[in-house]
Amino acid sequence: MSMNTFGHIFRVTTWGESHGPALGATVDGCPPGVPITAETIQHWLDKRKPGQNKYTTQRREADAVEILSGTFEGVTTGMPVQLMIRNTDQRSKDYSEIMDKFRPGHADITYWQKYGIRDYRGGGRSSARETAARVAAGGLARAALKHLTPDLNILGYMVQMGDQTIDRSRVDLDQIPENPFWCPDAQTAAAWATTLDDLRKSGNSVGAVIEVIARNPPAGLGAPIYGKIDTDIASAMMSINAVKGVEIGAGMSAATLTGTQNADEIGFEDGTPVYSSNHAGGILGGISTGQDIVARFAVKPTSSILAPRKTITKAGDQTEIITKGRHDPCVGIRAVPVGEAMMACTILDHILLHRAHVGENQGKIGP
Amino acid sequence: MSMNTFGHIFRVTTWGESHGPALGATVDGCPPGVPITAETIQHWLDKRKPGQNKYTTQRREADAVEILSGTFEGVTTGMPVQLMIRNTDQRSKDYSEIMDKFRPGHADITYWQKYGIRDYRGGGRSSARETAARVAAGGLARAALKHLTPDLNILGYMVQMGDQTIDRSRVDLDQIPENPFWCPDAQTAAAWATTLDDLRKSGNSVGAVIEVIARNPPAGLGAPIYGKIDTDIASAMMSINAVKGVEIGAGMSAATLTGTQNADEIGFEDGTPVYSSNHAGGILGGISTGQDIVARFAVKPTSSILAPRKTITKAGDQTEIITKGRHDPCVGIRAVPVGEAMMACTILDHILLHRAHVGENQGKIGP
Amino acid sequence: MSMNTFGHIFRVTTWGESHGPALGATVDGCPPGVPITAETIQHWLDKRKPGQNKYTTQRREADAVEILSGTFEGVTTGMPVQLMIRNTDQRSKDYSEIMDKFRPGHADITYWQKYGIRDYRGGGRSSARETAARVAAGGLARAALKHLTPDLNILGYMVQMGDQTIDRSRVDLDQIPENPFWCPDAQTAAAWATTLDDLRKSGNSVGAVIEVIARNPPAGLGAPIYGKIDTDIASAMMSINAVKGVEIGAGMSAATLTGTQNADEIGFEDGTPVYSSNHAGGILGGISTGQDIVARFAVKPTSSILAPRKTITKAGDQTEIITKGRHDPCVGIRAVPVGEAMMACTILDHILLHRAHVGENQGKIGP
Amino acid sequence: MSMNTFGHIFRVTTWGESHGPALGATVDGCPPGVPITAETIQHWLDKRKPGQNKYTTQRREADAVEILSGTFEGVTTGMPVQLMIRNTDQRSKDYSEIMDKFRPGHADITYWQKYGIRDYRGGGRSSARETAARVAAGGLARAALKHLTPDLNILGYMVQMGDQTIDRSRVDLDQIPENPFWCPDAQTAAAWATTLDDLRKSGNSVGAVIEVIARNPPAGLGAPIYGKIDTDIASAMMSINAVKGVEIGAGMSAATLTGTQNADEIGFEDGTPVYSSNHAGGILGGISTGQDIVARFAVKPTSSILAPRKTITKAGDQTEIITKGRHDPCVGIRAVPVGEAMMACTILDHILLHRAHVGENQGKIGP
Repeated sequence: MSMNTFGHIFRVTTWGESHGPALGATVDGCPPGVPITAETIQHWLDKRKPGQNKYTTQRREADAVEILSGTFEGVTTGMPVQLMIRNTDQRSKDYSEIMDKFRPGHADITYWQKYGIRDYRGGGRSSARETAARVAAGGLARAALKHLTPDLNILGYMVQMGDQTIDRSRVDLDQIPENPFWCPDAQTAAAWATTLDDLRKSGNSVGAVIEVIARNPPAGLGAPIYGKIDTDIASAMMSINAVKGVEIGAGMSAATLTGTQNADEIGFEDGTPVYSSNHAGGILGGISTGQDIVARFAVKPTSSILAPRKTITKAGDQTEIITKGRHDPCVGIRAVPVGEAMMACTILDHILLHRAHVGENQGKIGP
Repeated sequence: MSMNTFGHIFRVTTWGESHGPALGATVDGCPPGVPITAETIQHWLDKRKPGQNKYTTQRREADAVEILSGTFEGVTTGMPVQLMIRNTDQRSKDYSEIMDKFRPGHADITYWQKYGIRDYRGGGRSSARETAARVAAGGLARAALKHLTPDLNILGYMVQMGDQTIDRSRVDLDQIPENPFWCPDAQTAAAWATTLDDLRKSGNSVGAVIEVIARNPPAGLGAPIYGKIDTDIASAMMSINAVKGVEIGAGMSAATLTGTQNADEIGFEDGTPVYSSNHAGGILGGISTGQDIVARFAVKPTSSILAPRKTITKAGDQTEIITKGRHDPCVGIRAVPVGEAMMACTILDHILLHRAHVGENQGKIGP
Repeated sequence: MSMNTFGHIFRVTTWGESHGPALGATVDGCPPGVPITAETIQHWLDKRKPGQNKYTTQRREADAVEILSGTFEGVTTGMPVQLMIRNTDQRSKDYSEIMDKFRPGHADITYWQKYGIRDYRGGGRSSARETAARVAAGGLARAALKHLTPDLNILGYMVQMGDQTIDRSRVDLDQIPENPFWCPDAQTAAAWATTLDDLRKSGNSVGAVIEVIARNPPAGLGAPIYGKIDTDIASAMMSINAVKGVEIGAGMSAATLTGTQNADEIGFEDGTPVYSSNHAGGILGGISTGQDIVARFAVKPTSSILAPRKTITKAGDQTEIITKGRHDPCVGIRAVPVGEAMMACTILDHILLHRAHVGENQGKIGP
Repeated sequence: MSMNTFGHIFRVTTWGESHGPALGATVDGCPPGVPITAETIQHWLDKRKPGQNKYTTQRREADAVEILSGTFEGVTTGMPVQLMIRNTDQRSKDYSEIMDKFRPGHADITYWQKYGIRDYRGGGRSSARETAARVAAGGLARAALKHLTPDLNILGYMVQMGDQTIDRSRVDLDQIPENPFWCPDAQTAAAWATTLDDLRKSGNSVGAVIEVIARNPPAGLGAPIYGKIDTDIASAMMSINAVKGVEIGAGMSAATLTGTQNADEIGFEDGTPVYSSNHAGGILGGISTGQDIVARFAVKPTSSILAPRKTITKAGDQTEIITKGRHDPCVGIRAVPVGEAMMACTILDHILLHRAHVGENQGKIGP
């Protein structure tokens, strides 16, 4: 079973390490005839690119994507699309401090135990650098979505940093690109800036919650039991580095609701069902209702901090470690475009599955 | 792509509807030589069986499992195991009230839109009755786990109902089977009983949070990126009916932590790594550390309630609906054994994947 | 990875043993709205049923199929379809002669070596009885094909028994159901009858070649590299018990052709491409041309014969064995409906994959 | 469903076109700790490389492989291995002759019909150039096999060209690398040279049969029904460009045998089963016996020939075509290392599946 592949029909296999020559995504199953260029994909990679402001890692990567296969004269051919990104900033440094110690909260110890090999250069495969490949694949998925369902729109933003949560009454989606946090609430964004300045100075870090929505999705995406679209969104989001929780619609707080509060009532307008609320997150029985699909995920604080932490060496000796380097005080920020990419891949995949299984929606509502 | 199958090597395909002649699980990939009888599996089904107390649906099902294939002289042969459960209580009733209306919060409307066919008898495939098949498969997975990793132990319990959360300082795992809520905190269980009595009388329902832990797992289970064991746990739990959120370790609250708070420090005792805390939920970089694996999921309140809710008919006409019937005021209760079953299947699957990919752990820690 | 499942979107998992209580096929991914009844499927099972004439095993099985799930009011719902066949003629007999000996040419020795468990009752899972489940699944696939592509027609027949091959100039497809060999050449059928009478009397057996064609397939089925429709036909046919070779179009004899002989020239009539010949078997680059898809497979002689053969016991002692029992002198005969079923499943699966990946054919030929 | 991926655990996804910037194989699931360098893989690519003698295409490609990921300090890490080969000889030429015509026997017409896009530069994805990526992946598979089962040895050779077949009594495996045809019978190789000289001069081509054997395989590889190792070998070989038939052991000629002739008798020597013959090709019931695994496949004559053939244009107009260019008069020659690569990948995959499902063989034969 492939462990580096995501998706059923639109299948993305990412490859590459933090400090190897290159990384990328091998994307199979993209429909033919989708207009695509490296520039289209680069647009989304640039959103994720490190070093764009003082709140993200100062590693400098061009993150320039090359399309090595699967296109001809500016459109996809239906063949596998190879998206490659060269690593350029593999700063030569002294790893002697960490090569025999396991960084707490990192994959160092489990990779070593399982594989007996540890690529200590920046985390190797476990580095969040892998998410660049997902964003590239997501760029292709977005192009295919635009081709197949032009009304659909995918949008991610941060809704919580530490214990500071946005005020839903102040949300303005146009604010999202206006601050370094992809925050739709300008007032909260300002508060986060202060918090993050403090954390950065103290060499500490903090977690975050990101929300990703798909607006105007077709009804009917998803399938019962293990093919539920929420099941695939859950695995898509949980597979992102540092994610510890995933929610759909009301999410964990659904536990606190009563049945009368939770059930979104149904009406009918302009020939289509409408709903009084969206506790379901746009999904009933694993199948999209046509409402916005709403997912959220929590990103833990980066484990690379300046405070010394207790750990052990390969030899089993007790020691301490300080993780220096060019790290993000809130990795959640850069997870926003990654979450969008995973949503794009998941929805495209389900559009293809949908037409495989039913062709087009079989049931009609209305007179 | 199969939409009713879960797992990579140990693959469970469930089939059957709420009111058809039978339902079951076709389980492929179980190792040979695992001692198993119908009784072993029945033990777990009985935990989930409805009608055992006043807090669960009064539908009476024997839920008697038959093993139709894959065993010989009391052990598995390595061939597919067919686990069938006959439906016995398909109470003849009048569906005319609901056959043309969509119940809010249910899959009625999306199944109709997508498939153009609606099995209105108790929800058909979308009924939580499908989870009986999962519990049967989970029973087989537990038998295989006992055969392969006898120290491993899987345990589920409820930690929240509505806004009433257990007190972690009072947790006593021995209390779990002593109350109808699988609650490890006797005092909270008593409070829940009062709450649920009230809800049941008013025809209302409430959500819940279930925690499932795997104790004493081997280190090394899981793989990078899309093969992370937390990724598979997330999809396993999210695929359960009515689940809206999944957490690993610190879960959504990881967002509120700082890096110093979150990073579990590492020590070394008796030849094995030990950790100062378990915010990671036993998983680093997608691979088990050997600590307890800790997952939680939120179950929404059942949407079948006695209060009238606005909805529409197939013809698009506005109307109201009251969902009578034999329903659970808190479906979360019966989700406990289902969550255990999904954890058992996921962990067994990863044990098999692990030996496929690495044989046994390749790295050594210690002198 | 599931080892008892076939197909990508239309996925068939067979289960069950020769002498267990039942066997069947769990079919996932069938489109909704396909008219289907047990009688429709029974029609195809009856073609394969043993004991219908003196040339096939005298085991008496009703082979009555039950549909346990996935249909509602006479059509498929899009949910998994469970097709179960009860075993009825599990004649009680004395297995002491064979339970410790390995029958040459059978799977006895390899199953024992691998699994350490041997279901000696009629071969257990390795029995050709498993093919009943495939025929049932193929019956459902045929119903779906009729629904989606009514012009398509699948037909299998025997073209060789031992060294007696049909005369292609005498082929009359109407002859196929008129003789016990599904032979389209009446004169050869008569010759085979004589041969088989002799073999049966001497307790010997013989091999055969079966040809299966799909007439009037749409152009465009299949995909490059590992998704070629001929690749999937090859694995479909090779997975049938006792099959040792698979051919597409010219098959193995393509080796003897020159390029000028082999290349089917292309013309254009009535708005569609036509070909001067069909060495390609209806497939170019893995994708159907619209010509008949032509596959053949060789079935070895049944290894259950009355002549004593040398073998060993579990203890490694040299011995001899005579396989008594109710066996087919030419198992190839009953492989005809099985080959048809595999072709039906494969083509349906590719029709679904095709609409997933491209929707409908994207290229136009003509003015 | 991924259409460019092969394998269950050891998964190979090839990508790239004949005249794009590069092609390659993304290999997931390789066990960690396998010693590998670009040179090791280059050794196998050099066997397949065109232009090595007058009987293969004169296209000059360095076919130099780069390892972009998945290794660290000379061994595999267990992460995806990206093997990239730059295309260097994309000779600029005039395609106006063929860009609107479909070459008979090629995938031109079906790719156009299905995808609506035709990369006319050398066949694009349908070019046999794709097999370089398979050979690279096969080189990695061989390294893993050497690491896991050092006694296993994979060997391919040509046994038939046109109607000239080797004489099995003259076979000397040491002869294989001594002639340009990988032929184990020196006398037949000489005859083939004469035949091929004539064909090349006349601009014609011819088909061939290749045999690939795995010597000293462990017993127990493979699994019932759709996981049979012969099923996977069949699809592996049929997926190679221009292959029209696949055989295991006695192959198509099994049809001509009687049961007494076909059943390989079993003896016991040095603590292990031995067989009187190998009609089964080393596989019983889909599982390896420990004898040599023997497969053969037929390659059709290349369709690129100098004789004019009738065809049509995109507009549907009747025309003729002569396929000039640098082509192989017998593509079967260069299919030998490709067949070896597919066998290596398939066997490695089944070794990993075997340890997933049973760990190690569970049954014992002997006192």
